Formats: sequence, C-alpha cells, structure tokens
Amino acid sequence: MTLDSTTPPDLFEEHLALDPTARELLFTAARTANNFADEPVPDDQLRAIWELAKWPPTSANVNPLRVLYLRTDTAQDRLIPHLAESNQHKSASAPVIAVLAYDTQYTEHVPRLLPFRPEMKEMLEADPVHHQEQARFNAALQAAYFLLSIRAAGLTAGPLGGFDAEAVDREFFPDGRLKSFLVVNIGKPGDDPWFERLPRLGYEEVVQLI
Amino acid sequence: MTLDSTTPPDLFEEHLALDPTARELLFTAARTANNFADEPVPDDQLRAIWELAKWPPTSANVNPLRVLYLRTDTAQDRLIPHLAESNQHKSASAPVIAVLAYDTQYTEHVPRLLPFRPEMKEMLEADPVHHQEQARFNAALQAAYFLLSIRAAGLTAGPLGGFDAEAVDREFFPDGRLKSFLVVNIGKPGDDPWFERLPRLGYEEVVQLI
Repeated sequence: MTLDSTTPPDLFEEHLALDPTARELLFTAARTANNFADEPVPDDQLRAIWELAKWPPTSANVNPLRVLYLRTDTAQDRLIPHLAESNQHKSASAPVIAVLAYDTQYTEHVPRLLPFRPEMKEMLEADPVHHQEQARFNAALQAAYFLLSIRAAGLTAGPLGGFDAEAVDREFFPDGRLKSFLVVNIGKPGDDPWFERLPRLGYEEVVQLI
Repeated sequence: MTLDSTTPPDLFEEHLALDPTARELLFTAARTANNFADEPVPDDQLRAIWELAKWPPTSANVNPLRVLYLRTDTAQDRLIPHLAESNQHKSASAPVIAVLAYDTQYTEHVPRLLPFRPEMKEMLEADPVHHQEQARFNAALQAAYFLLSIRAAGLTAGPLGGFDAEAVDREFFPDGRLKSFLVVNIGKPGDDPWFERLPRLGYEEVVQLI
C-alpha cells in the first residue's frame, strides 16, 4: 500500500523484508485514535506489550523507561484533571491509560544490565546534565518501541504530550524518582476514531545521501 | 520464541496480532551488530527505510528528524575520526552510516504538517526551551522508528551515541540548523557480529498496574 504520492510504487515490496500485513499493522495503516471502543484490555495483553517493547536497544542498555498502567476509573480519575482540556475526553474513553516516565536514578541498574562494563554507572553519573539527558533520550526511544508494541497487540495507541507533568508526578510518583513525559491511551478504536491522515515531509526535505 | 525466563510462555501467541516472523525480525531476535558484511545497501533500500519510518506519530506531527546517509568511503572518512575510539572500527565496516539529526527550526513546517492548527507554530516557538526539548524528544521517537525500519528492511542497525556531536555538526551541518544526536551503522551482519544478549529489567521493576 502506497500511502502518499511521494512514495515510489513497489519500493516496499522490493526492499523490505517485513511482510505487508505487519507493515500496515505497525507503520503504514495504523493511526492515532481520538476515541476508543468500550472493550477492556486484559492485564496479560498489557504485559505482552511490555515484554515485546523491552527488546530493542538503548544506549549502554540503560533501559530508563517505567510504565504505570491506569485501568480502573478510580486510577484514571486521578490523571484526567491534569491533562490539557482538549485531551481529557480522549483519555476518558480509553479502557487503559499508560503514564510513561523515566527513572532519574536509572544508573542504579547499570552493573546488572551492562555486566561487562559496570564502570559505565560512574561514567554516566559523573556529568549530571548528561546523566539526565541520557535518561530522557533513551526513555523516548523506548516510548516509541512501546507505541509500536501497542499496535503489535492489535490495539491503537493515542499518545498525548499535553499534560501537567509536575502535577502528574506529585499525584503518582511523590518520592520524585520518576518523571512522567508521555501519556498513552490504549484500546480498540471507537466510532469515527481519527481525522484524515496528516501529511509528512517529502523525502528530499528529510534525507540527504552523500 | 521466549527470550528470557521471565516472559510467560504463550503470552505473545495469545495477546499479540503481530505474527512471529515479524516479531522476531523487529523485536525479539534482531540484534545490534558490531561488524558488518562487505555487501552494499542500494539507495532505494535506504529510501524504503525512510518511507516506512516516516509514518508513526510525533507530537503535533512536527517530524523534526533529518537523516544524512554516508555511503562512500570519502563521506564516511569525514565522520569516523569524530566517533569514540571504541566505535570507530564498528563504523569502518558498515556499508552505510546514517547521521541522525534534529532540525532546530522544525516549526517552519508546522503550518503545512498540521494544517488544521497552524497557530501551533507560534505556540511552540513562544517558549524557546520547550521548543528545543520538543525537537529532541520527537526526533528520538523518530530515531526509534528508524531503527526498527532498518530491521524491517532485513538489515541490522548499529546505533552509536559515543561521538563528538559538535565536531560532526561543524563537518556536515556548518550552518548550525541541524544538530546530530545519533550515528547508526547499517548493513548485513558480519562474522561474529554480536556479543551475548544483555539482560533486561524484570516486569515488576518496570511496570505498575493500578
């Protein structure tokens, strides 16, 4: 399936190993939903999403992402007032909402996660600014793996950046160790769940070959 | 395929829509290579990687990632001295090296990319710190989509964070608009291309359900 007129026909067929069904499920046909069907997501499926998302790489295998799944109305009601008003109705219809956060003390686990180079812990901690930049960067990579893993489960992800992160952290992570950076609605798409697809930049605007 | 003893058997079969072949190709069997086969990657395949990676979402559809593919020895020789010494031999064996950068002036394109809300351009630009944080965050999401798209092409990605970004920017992006943040080796894996797989955190260490 060619999704816009700028992609040459047969490019994917000739140059990708990933089959068309998987390609559409994860990349080309999947969409960000604005409302969700009233159908629960089992806890084991939430676990499957994570068990898939945990494998792609992070720098020095630091794995700073942490996930808080809100499944009950009681839990979701603690979040929704802290979302931008334009986002509140989207989350209110989602059977599960994930709060993605990074662990500011992620280097605690370096000796276990990078056993052949445990000194990376002290190397990362030596520069406090770089230490936290690495947390944010690698958690963002993992957030993307997580979004595609939600799609891999046959569900729709609705990521939202518009929320009061400090208020969310006070509510859910009061000890200050975890910092929220993305809210993700999860479920099956509802009725009329998305707008027309938004355009992308042209190939020549993004990519240079030398 | 269960990759570590902490993933319950049959979890993926029961709860994912993505087929096992695609799952292994992108997530569970794919690995980060340290050396590469001496086999070229066609330009059209580099294009297919981007045409796939461009579809998953960014905040407000900002799409700040820019990609510079280095294919020739001449181009690669301009990069390799700026990599951490321990990374230089990895890149030297790669048929293609991508320099991933974000466009510091990405909001130029907002009126075209988000036509129903062109005022987002001024809203993002109003806070210079937030403006650049959004560039870095969304470019990191897109970098992850790009890494999985390399795997979707049947190739191996070797992302490297250890390089002198300021020197790379002076060499390749002298006007200061683009800021490099990740180098990615691309190709088929060479002989003995990877170490034993590194561990991941346990489910209960990462995920909470409430």
